[in-house]
Amino acid sequence: MPFACLPPNAPLMSNPLIFAVPKGRILDEALPLMAAAGVVPEAEFHDKKSRALSFACENNEMRIIRVRAFDVATFVAHGAASVGIVGSDVVEEFNFSDLYAPVDLDIGHCRLSVAEPVDVKGTTSASHLRVASKYPSLTRRHYERQGIQAEVVKLNGAMELAPGLGLASRIVDLVSTGRTLKDNGLVETSVILQISARLIVNRAALKTDERVAALVEAFRAVAAARKAA
Amino acid sequence: MPFACLPPNAPLMSNPLIFAVPKGRILDEALPLMAAAGVVPEAEFHDKKSRALSFACENNEMRIIRVRAFDVATFVAHGAASVGIVGSDVVEEFNFSDLYAPVDLDIGHCRLSVAEPVDVKGTTSASHLRVASKYPSLTRRHYERQGIQAEVVKLNGAMELAPGLGLASRIVDLVSTGRTLKDNGLVETSVILQISARLIVNRAALKTDERVAALVEAFRAVAAARKAA
Repeated sequence: MPFACLPPNAPLMSNPLIFAVPKGRILDEALPLMAAAGVVPEAEFHDKKSRALSFACENNEMRIIRVRAFDVATFVAHGAASVGIVGSDVVEEFNFSDLYAPVDLDIGHCRLSVAEPVDVKGTTSASHLRVASKYPSLTRRHYERQGIQAEVVKLNGAMELAPGLGLASRIVDLVSTGRTLKDNGLVETSVILQISARLIVNRAALKTDERVAALVEAFRAVAAARKAA
Repeated sequence: MPFACLPPNAPLMSNPLIFAVPKGRILDEALPLMAAAGVVPEAEFHDKKSRALSFACENNEMRIIRVRAFDVATFVAHGAASVGIVGSDVVEEFNFSDLYAPVDLDIGHCRLSVAEPVDVKGTTSASHLRVASKYPSLTRRHYERQGIQAEVVKLNGAMELAPGLGLASRIVDLVSTGRTLKDNGLVETSVILQISARLIVNRAALKTDERVAALVEAFRAVAAARKAA
């Protein structure tokens, strides 16, 4: 998605800088790091009744947009947001050339794993597999490395239902404690990716907007200080 | 996705019959119709703290799974669920050959529309457009019919942000009251599809499992009675 594709009147580089954060689990862990780096959303951001999609920032002219994790990467890769925070699972799934992930924030840890029913574990050795996942690209690449052609059924949630209903023999899904797998009679059989949240930036914005480079340095310092503590 | 692709031991046709319903807006309207057709989920289905993905049904051996709307169509098209309820937007977006939508339930009404910023309305007449949507296939088909090549940026939510941030000049999104569009400075410029919820079935299951045909008849009767009332 080349930067040059944007219409000439796109407000891409105009003020304010757009910072994209994901809804959900990572956000609670990200807010203290953002505050330490000087990025503090206005009070309305925390109002669960608010219908707003975009928020002002205290102490500077930045705007914060809160979108789904996959969309954080899409906004940043296209330059519609200059900076964002998202899990490395999303960065790897999309593999956008215009998206750069310079800082590992060391939060939001989990893993992307293959799981299959307890009762058939290890008995399947087919050269063709059907796998249910929210991550079709990472799943395909994982099996290609093993010389296995995987047909991926894209699901947006409830992957754990797929094996029991005959939709797929395996799933590739995020695993944190493993409880959801266990509750559904599944067992983790291999880890594809160890995941943590990253600061991501649009490459063109990093080159042309000094505020982006400053934010990268601020988050790098926060992450280093946390590691040293 | 031919039925023959399933592994020979797939529990597809075994008891119980699987009925897939979507999370969210349509479900509240669908539950009374389901009850009238004899499909009543167990009490745990209504327990918001429940981590279960699959539920028993009162008075019969059916299982009810509650998944995202797009996944309802995927489960039914692959025969992992025999029957489901989903908006016609999802049916049309996927266009699965093994999915049949025999009954219009006349609930969940909304429309799929094109919207663009108020201040540029009608001024864009490009032969190439960038459009943000959760419905890449329906969006592409809409513009193809007009001889316009549309580049679709797939977003999972918050489409309304895209024009203001230069991600796309237009969006294709579900519209109900129009309030969200208005709140974001957008105006609806054309309607692509009038939407209502449908009973959907797997074609192979309809031919081979008489319980599926019986459910189609039950829902058809319920829909007809509602229309006559």
